[in-house]
Amino acid sequence: PDTMERLLRRFRIRSQLARECVAEFLGLYIVFGSGAAAQVITSEGTHGSYLTIQLGSALGAIFGMLVAQGVSGAHLNPVYSMSLCVLGRHPWTKLPLYSLSQLIGAFLGAGTVYLQYYDAIQAFTGGQLLVAGPNATAGIFSSYPAEHLSFWGGLVDQVVAAALFLLCCMALEDKRNGPLPDGLQPIVVGVLILTMGVSMGSNCGFPLNPARDLGPRLFTFIAGWGPEVFKTCKWAGGGWWWVPLVAPFVGGLLGTLTYELLIEAHHPNTSNEEQSPRRQQEVVELEEMELEEVVVDSGHNT
Amino acid sequence: PDTMERLLRRFRIRSQLARECVAEFLGLYIVFGSGAAAQVITSEGTHGSYLTIQLGSALGAIFGMLVAQGVSGAHLNPVYSMSLCVLGRHPWTKLPLYSLSQLIGAFLGAGTVYLQYYDAIQAFTGGQLLVAGPNATAGIFSSYPAEHLSFWGGLVDQVVAAALFLLCCMALEDKRNGPLPDGLQPIVVGVLILTMGVSMGSNCGFPLNPARDLGPRLFTFIAGWGPEVFKTCKWAGGGWWWVPLVAPFVGGLLGTLTYELLIEAHHPNTSNEEQSPRRQQEVVELEEMELEEVVVDSGHNT
Amino acid sequence: PDTMERLLRRFRIRSQLARECVAEFLGLYIVFGSGAAAQVITSEGTHGSYLTIQLGSALGAIFGMLVAQGVSGAHLNPVYSMSLCVLGRHPWTKLPLYSLSQLIGAFLGAGTVYLQYYDAIQAFTGGQLLVAGPNATAGIFSSYPAEHLSFWGGLVDQVVAAALFLLCCMALEDKRNGPLPDGLQPIVVGVLILTMGVSMGSNCGFPLNPARDLGPRLFTFIAGWGPEVFKTCKWAGGGWWWVPLVAPFVGGLLGTLTYELLIEAHHPNTSNEEQSPRRQQEVVELEEMELEEVVVDSGHNT
Amino acid sequence: PDTMERLLRRFRIRSQLARECVAEFLGLYIVFGSGAAAQVITSEGTHGSYLTIQLGSALGAIFGMLVAQGVSGAHLNPVYSMSLCVLGRHPWTKLPLYSLSQLIGAFLGAGTVYLQYYDAIQAFTGGQLLVAGPNATAGIFSSYPAEHLSFWGGLVDQVVAAALFLLCCMALEDKRNGPLPDGLQPIVVGVLILTMGVSMGSNCGFPLNPARDLGPRLFTFIAGWGPEVFKTCKWAGGGWWWVPLVAPFVGGLLGTLTYELLIEAHHPNTSNEEQSPRRQQEVVELEEMELEEVVVDSGHNT
Repeated sequence: PDTMERLLRRFRIRSQLARECVAEFLGLYIVFGSGAAAQVITSEGTHGSYLTIQLGSALGAIFGMLVAQGVSGAHLNPVYSMSLCVLGRHPWTKLPLYSLSQLIGAFLGAGTVYLQYYDAIQAFTGGQLLVAGPNATAGIFSSYPAEHLSFWGGLVDQVVAAALFLLCCMALEDKRNGPLPDGLQPIVVGVLILTMGVSMGSNCGFPLNPARDLGPRLFTFIAGWGPEVFKTCKWAGGGWWWVPLVAPFVGGLLGTLTYELLIEAHHPNTSNEEQSPRRQQEVVELEEMELEEVVVDSGHNT
Repeated sequence: PDTMERLLRRFRIRSQLARECVAEFLGLYIVFGSGAAAQVITSEGTHGSYLTIQLGSALGAIFGMLVAQGVSGAHLNPVYSMSLCVLGRHPWTKLPLYSLSQLIGAFLGAGTVYLQYYDAIQAFTGGQLLVAGPNATAGIFSSYPAEHLSFWGGLVDQVVAAALFLLCCMALEDKRNGPLPDGLQPIVVGVLILTMGVSMGSNCGFPLNPARDLGPRLFTFIAGWGPEVFKTCKWAGGGWWWVPLVAPFVGGLLGTLTYELLIEAHHPNTSNEEQSPRRQQEVVELEEMELEEVVVDSGHNT
Repeated sequence: PDTMERLLRRFRIRSQLARECVAEFLGLYIVFGSGAAAQVITSEGTHGSYLTIQLGSALGAIFGMLVAQGVSGAHLNPVYSMSLCVLGRHPWTKLPLYSLSQLIGAFLGAGTVYLQYYDAIQAFTGGQLLVAGPNATAGIFSSYPAEHLSFWGGLVDQVVAAALFLLCCMALEDKRNGPLPDGLQPIVVGVLILTMGVSMGSNCGFPLNPARDLGPRLFTFIAGWGPEVFKTCKWAGGGWWWVPLVAPFVGGLLGTLTYELLIEAHHPNTSNEEQSPRRQQEVVELEEMELEEVVVDSGHNT
Repeated sequence: PDTMERLLRRFRIRSQLARECVAEFLGLYIVFGSGAAAQVITSEGTHGSYLTIQLGSALGAIFGMLVAQGVSGAHLNPVYSMSLCVLGRHPWTKLPLYSLSQLIGAFLGAGTVYLQYYDAIQAFTGGQLLVAGPNATAGIFSSYPAEHLSFWGGLVDQVVAAALFLLCCMALEDKRNGPLPDGLQPIVVGVLILTMGVSMGSNCGFPLNPARDLGPRLFTFIAGWGPEVFKTCKWAGGGWWWVPLVAPFVGGLLGTLTYELLIEAHHPNTSNEEQSPRRQQEVVELEEMELEEVVVDSGHNT
């Protein structure tokens, strides 16, 4: 035991920012969503269904959050990081490094899924890695618009979805709006992702997360699907790929501000709360617990 | 950070009732159920199933509750508000404004779903917005009776469903009947909605919520589905639309009183609830609640 | 408020046993399982699937437990009551009244489901209420064996299923074996029922609960399905109906004793636990906590 | 009551190791996964789907953990035991006995499932117990590779899956990385197993657990499936069976070390964990824990 602890201690990173980047990297690396899609697509529906793909994405994200939460707060999405920055709860300077770490995590995660499903993808495609058509497999890794979706429809879809997503995330963050039991946040965010998957997934697969979408897209670009992953057939002069990079930021900002303006700004006594240092949010919690203690004690003694 | 907080504080609404109405509005706005139905119907079942529609309704409601709970208590349903009023736990004077806010939230929520699924609905319907038939899309937004359902069958269905729903809600409310962990109530109510969806959804889609049903129906009326949304083909002289407006109130009252008369009225020492010792267990719980109140109060006052 | 409270107080039942019976009655009345089966069968699978039937049974039971738990402990199953009696944790004298209340609750619950699905059942069956064949609807309410099941196979299935069910229930009861958060027990039992439904439902629908099976069977007997509900075609001289009445008791006893003999009997310091009066369950719980600490401590130190 | 308690006390095992082995045995015995597979396969998909098989495995494991957790810590998997041993958190000397107990539990569990589904398996197979082909039933009990899977593909699949599994388990273990509510761990591990089932199940059924795979394989070997269960048709010179015995250990080690090196090693002040202040957040948490302890202590002393 001690031997192992001592060994591990040698590798200890003392930079807080470096630790956080590693956590963000790992959190996005282990997201299981692509595996769930690979399983359903390559088994032609015998090993799952649309629902299991959404379960894979949603529940997988829970474990990404559980891995990273104690170190970096488990942002795992540049849009979420940006929202916290806008609200002054996260330094802007960390945003690029967080995003880059997430991107690399998602890139390597896609690589791992490809490795794990290499045989299955070969068998399903006959070796042809395609972006469109009935044997397309690029959709395992990144989002592509459905046939019916217009360019504006795609933009609106991503803005609306990201707005609702961030609005709900802000509600979960807001300790004054509801006593969600400590530690359940990752699970509830996972449920939120599932909800979005079953409500907003058929237009373009609800990417919502620029790092989660671009990282695997870059992987498919170099792994054999080629430049097609950055093009779409029907929209002239451009392609789909930048929509899930840009629209979620717009929607996320919209949702964040909506929540702040409609709910959080109106909590009583917002003013003097700032004076207490934000970081020690736990103070209030601690006080509450002390009081609970008194209760328990008095309960015992009487 | 401070800049943003200061900016937001400018918009602060000091009226408690106004804050509550905004919360009720937003809580019903973000309910994801219609999106889940839109997704399954317009994708012709390739992006979901009956179960995912129910999951969308049920899990979506969880986030509506999480958004509103700290401000208004997250009624999100006029029937629930009415039940609390009947039991003297909510002022009757607030009922109309709560209901109106819920109605507007559901109306705009339907509009947002229509916006998000505009392309998909166009592609699915060929531009014809119909209330009945194989390409009908009105059912995305509001409830319509199944072919087999008679008028009386619809009434009974809604009365029974609302009675069971409110009966269970009252049990969840009743702190002396079971120590559900704090903060889990929205999740358990979401599970309740899912349970009802898989048990009581095939007659007429378990509307249960007059605001959630009428708001989107009004939206479809003006958005192109037209007056058909207020008519039903087979029932002479009238239509379905008022059943989910009226029957849930009747059923809700029935269920609320059933719970009160069969369970809550018989808890020991209901009469002098505030002062007297109950069973050992409850004393401690009550004291905890009182102390929590103190905490909350002191939070408010400082 | 006061008016209502005062009104309700007039109806107050002071007999603890009567209150418990009412709670057991109501808890089994609101179990949603039959509705889920009715929905799937009468919609011919368009409004659900095998999984939604199991979800209805399992999640519905959660709300039955939440309604009854604070009053009677939410047994909701004579087998569970019997197990507690065998272990000396529940008086044998209450067993008949509990079971009768459960039976009546299940009987009236079946009646309510029939009422709610009257139109749907008429449309699906053309008015013929059958026990067997493709249009059979008796399976909505009670269990019937699958084609492949022999008499001994049915007995074994019910004994094994009830044994595993009670074994797990005893583990959930055993505070010294794991700190399940207070108030989560009904939810975990619901998950257990779901697990059994997806693992042990295809032989004969895992009745497991004599009251839940006999009550609705009696209802179908008088409501038009007739004496066929007590017969089975292929087994000479008897019928299926008594298997789910008897086998679960045998299995339940087996599972209870297995858990007690393999796990609970070996917890350290079981001996001095008995001296504290049983009715003040909280005392025991407190002591258990002390014991857990001792255990943990000793575990660490040794 | 007293009689029963006194009776049970006679059987009390005082050896801590023996108790732990019994708990590991029982925990793996009651895992419901095989039943779920038996149900779907023998009902030819009318009583479940791929998702219900995964639900059976995942939720069943929850109850295995709940049964064993208070006694042995509910390892239920030799790979998990090994990981704890490597990290010095479990004595290596216990590893063989734990593994053997798990193996016997899984063996007898498979026997019970066979007993319960004997009629159904006979009806489905016409009495022929086959390992491959459309009527194969060996897959109910143990893992077999899919048609498309190569030998190396199978190895990689199991290494990757076990690595991710153990990585997430280590995160759940790591109290400094996230305050998962006490007692929820078994449930979250169950969710993790479900996630893996929907993400990594189509190559070879994600065995992940050498005891869970070998025990039932041995059972099928002697119960009539014969030596075929140790062979695979397409891979010359060997067979599949040892892959799920060996690869999970490799992957598990990889995942454990990855988590330790990327996350846990960098928690501030790992070295003098017991005494020293950690990061602000953790300080508070620690203090909270201490305070909770004080409460409990004072409760004990009064």
